[in-house]
Amino acid sequence: MLAEIITIGDEILIGQIIDSNSAFIGKELNKIGVDVLQITSIRDDKQDILNALAQAEKRVDIVILTGGLGPTKDDITKHTICTYFDDELIQDTKVLRHIEKLFEKYISTPISDINRQQALVPSRSTVLMNLYGTAPGMWIEQNDKVFVSMPGVPYEMKGLMKNEVLPRLQKRFDRPHIIHKTVLTYGMGESAIAAKIEDWEDNLPSFIKLAYLPNLGSVRLRLSGRGTDKKLLEDTIENRIEGLHDIIGEIIVGYEEDEKIEVRIGQLLIKNGKTISVAESCTGGKIAQSFTSNAGSSAYFNGGVVTYATQSKIDVLGVDSDIIEKYTVTSAEVAETMAATVKEKFKSDYAIATTGNAGPTKGDGDVEVGTVFIAIATPEKVFSEKFVFGNSRERTIGKAVAKSFELLLLELKDAHN
Amino acid sequence: MLAEIITIGDEILIGQIIDSNSAFIGKELNKIGVDVLQITSIRDDKQDILNALAQAEKRVDIVILTGGLGPTKDDITKHTICTYFDDELIQDTKVLRHIEKLFEKYISTPISDINRQQALVPSRSTVLMNLYGTAPGMWIEQNDKVFVSMPGVPYEMKGLMKNEVLPRLQKRFDRPHIIHKTVLTYGMGESAIAAKIEDWEDNLPSFIKLAYLPNLGSVRLRLSGRGTDKKLLEDTIENRIEGLHDIIGEIIVGYEEDEKIEVRIGQLLIKNGKTISVAESCTGGKIAQSFTSNAGSSAYFNGGVVTYATQSKIDVLGVDSDIIEKYTVTSAEVAETMAATVKEKFKSDYAIATTGNAGPTKGDGDVEVGTVFIAIATPEKVFSEKFVFGNSRERTIGKAVAKSFELLLLELKDAHN
Repeated sequence: MLAEIITIGDEILIGQIIDSNSAFIGKELNKIGVDVLQITSIRDDKQDILNALAQAEKRVDIVILTGGLGPTKDDITKHTICTYFDDELIQDTKVLRHIEKLFEKYISTPISDINRQQALVPSRSTVLMNLYGTAPGMWIEQNDKVFVSMPGVPYEMKGLMKNEVLPRLQKRFDRPHIIHKTVLTYGMGESAIAAKIEDWEDNLPSFIKLAYLPNLGSVRLRLSGRGTDKKLLEDTIENRIEGLHDIIGEIIVGYEEDEKIEVRIGQLLIKNGKTISVAESCTGGKIAQSFTSNAGSSAYFNGGVVTYATQSKIDVLGVDSDIIEKYTVTSAEVAETMAATVKEKFKSDYAIATTGNAGPTKGDGDVEVGTVFIAIATPEKVFSEKFVFGNSRERTIGKAVAKSFELLLLELKDAHN
Repeated sequence: MLAEIITIGDEILIGQIIDSNSAFIGKELNKIGVDVLQITSIRDDKQDILNALAQAEKRVDIVILTGGLGPTKDDITKHTICTYFDDELIQDTKVLRHIEKLFEKYISTPISDINRQQALVPSRSTVLMNLYGTAPGMWIEQNDKVFVSMPGVPYEMKGLMKNEVLPRLQKRFDRPHIIHKTVLTYGMGESAIAAKIEDWEDNLPSFIKLAYLPNLGSVRLRLSGRGTDKKLLEDTIENRIEGLHDIIGEIIVGYEEDEKIEVRIGQLLIKNGKTISVAESCTGGKIAQSFTSNAGSSAYFNGGVVTYATQSKIDVLGVDSDIIEKYTVTSAEVAETMAATVKEKFKSDYAIATTGNAGPTKGDGDVEVGTVFIAIATPEKVFSEKFVFGNSRERTIGKAVAKSFELLLLELKDAHN
């Protein structure tokens, strides 16, 4: 089963928004054994949409469209679908009632004709009810192929995928089994790993594929198996991962699929009944935000301070101004004092602290742009490491966050294994 | 001038990563007057890459490829490019020396043959030096069309675009003028705006396009003009925006292109010599992180606290436990106390505080999931508002951050206009 995702909207092509919908749809389709062959993003242009539909229909079995279903004039998907399928728009009374209800309940402005027009759907389509918005989803079949059109608003699209599209696709098509397993590694580069596991990789059976997914200091190795015998797939992948462990076990920090390192840290903290707090300077709240973006983080994340200005390190965190004067604000001593102090203030068992300069200018300190000191406080000790991450501000912040998690995870692994 | 972006990598199609490269490339091309007609994401598959290249060559003048240039076996772009252009790989000594230098300077593992192979490039290509990594960019011309291949690592690709690709494209092609101007509105929905400005929109000249870009409580209205007469474009857009101001002036909060609201806040704070700090509970550091992700934020952002656990609001921020007991932790009183306290602690002029429950469970408080109180402290006053954002954790956090910025911006506009 092959699918193509077509995302429609000028705002994608001029880069005003990042197309995160396709990633979500790709991941969900993949889970039910549907392969995405291509993602195509095109403008709000009738001819472009018609061309994309025609080409996708040649390539794949399932075409998923998002975008261009809003109430305004620049959204033309619905009309173009009618042209493509030689169909006409008719009013769906159930959708109309749903729109009227949404307006009554949540929207202060009065309902308009523009809003009511969202209840118009191609006569051949099966309506997919959008619980979270006014634009309905549509399902159309032609020549044994399925076409689905959904609004581009992410949470509306996600609701439609989960409630309507995925269950209907599972009913409609037979699919092979697909199993992914991802091995999370830290501390070794992509090519060094590749050299070490070359023989292992060459000996993988043809139905298992390996991919390297590097990201700021970590490399995920993803094994994907595909076939009709689910047990064989699972056993083979399990067995090959054991082999991998024999070769590079020391850099493997986790196994679960799609696992973020901060989630893994959270699991270890919860398992051991420990808590953490953070004191951030150059990372500016990104470590705290990484923890708290995960549901359930309140079980282990006590909180943190973002002491961005030097004075705030003294006023808020209580770092001794003599230490700052003696060692400068970007120093091992200040990082370690920040970690120890925040740990105490938040009554946590562990703490992370960062101080550095992400650039672009030298700022309060006098260190090279890209220099970051990361300190870790554990129940037993406080230590720090110095890093120089280079000239890109975004990259320095990202790398500092990743390195902080890496250092902490190694401590947690040591402490509790 | 039309361009197509082709991003290569299984990890995009199975949704393991979000393709943010295309948005960056699209935005940069657009700025120099190159229109992106299509973004195509495909698998690491030789035939798929060949097909995509052939189709793109028919459609556009410029084809930009990213991805598949890593040192490992699953990266096949370079070999496929050779097939497509009937070319062969040769070693580029300048690139080889660059790779060896990077290894000497930054990488602890010894250089391997796999690393050295990254210095192989198609003989017909012009090498684009990648200052931030080992895989070079490549520029190939054929039948008056330009093909560019870059690595998929975002900061490497960004460096290549800025240093090499954009300057070369500007030299190579004549382009029309493109001008975008974006009007940032807050507090009215997309369809309500559309109804209000219908006549205005109908009367836009054909060389000006309007797009609605809704995002968490704000709607951006983007006017795009294209033509050979730059002055006419600028004057017309200016004039039409004045007309827009007459109709919906009360919801317009900013004008600049692509402007993030936190950047606009930063500009107003700097202009008036004021500073800000934040106290975050449910937003978990995202407000601090939004400010600090922008270069220059240390001029106005003093810092913040993430008091995630209830106890930390008392211990760290000094919120009176009686207030929490009397009004509960998710209350206007606690939000306002947090704002006033953090403002004082960080010696700032303004402060934002959030307290609420982003879900999925009820947590410390006993309010409905999705309830958030946002407090703003100004030099003159402290006030708060209550919001109920619904069941999605991600959306509640996002909306709370957006609403915080909206409330603050209105204060700054009032204070300094």
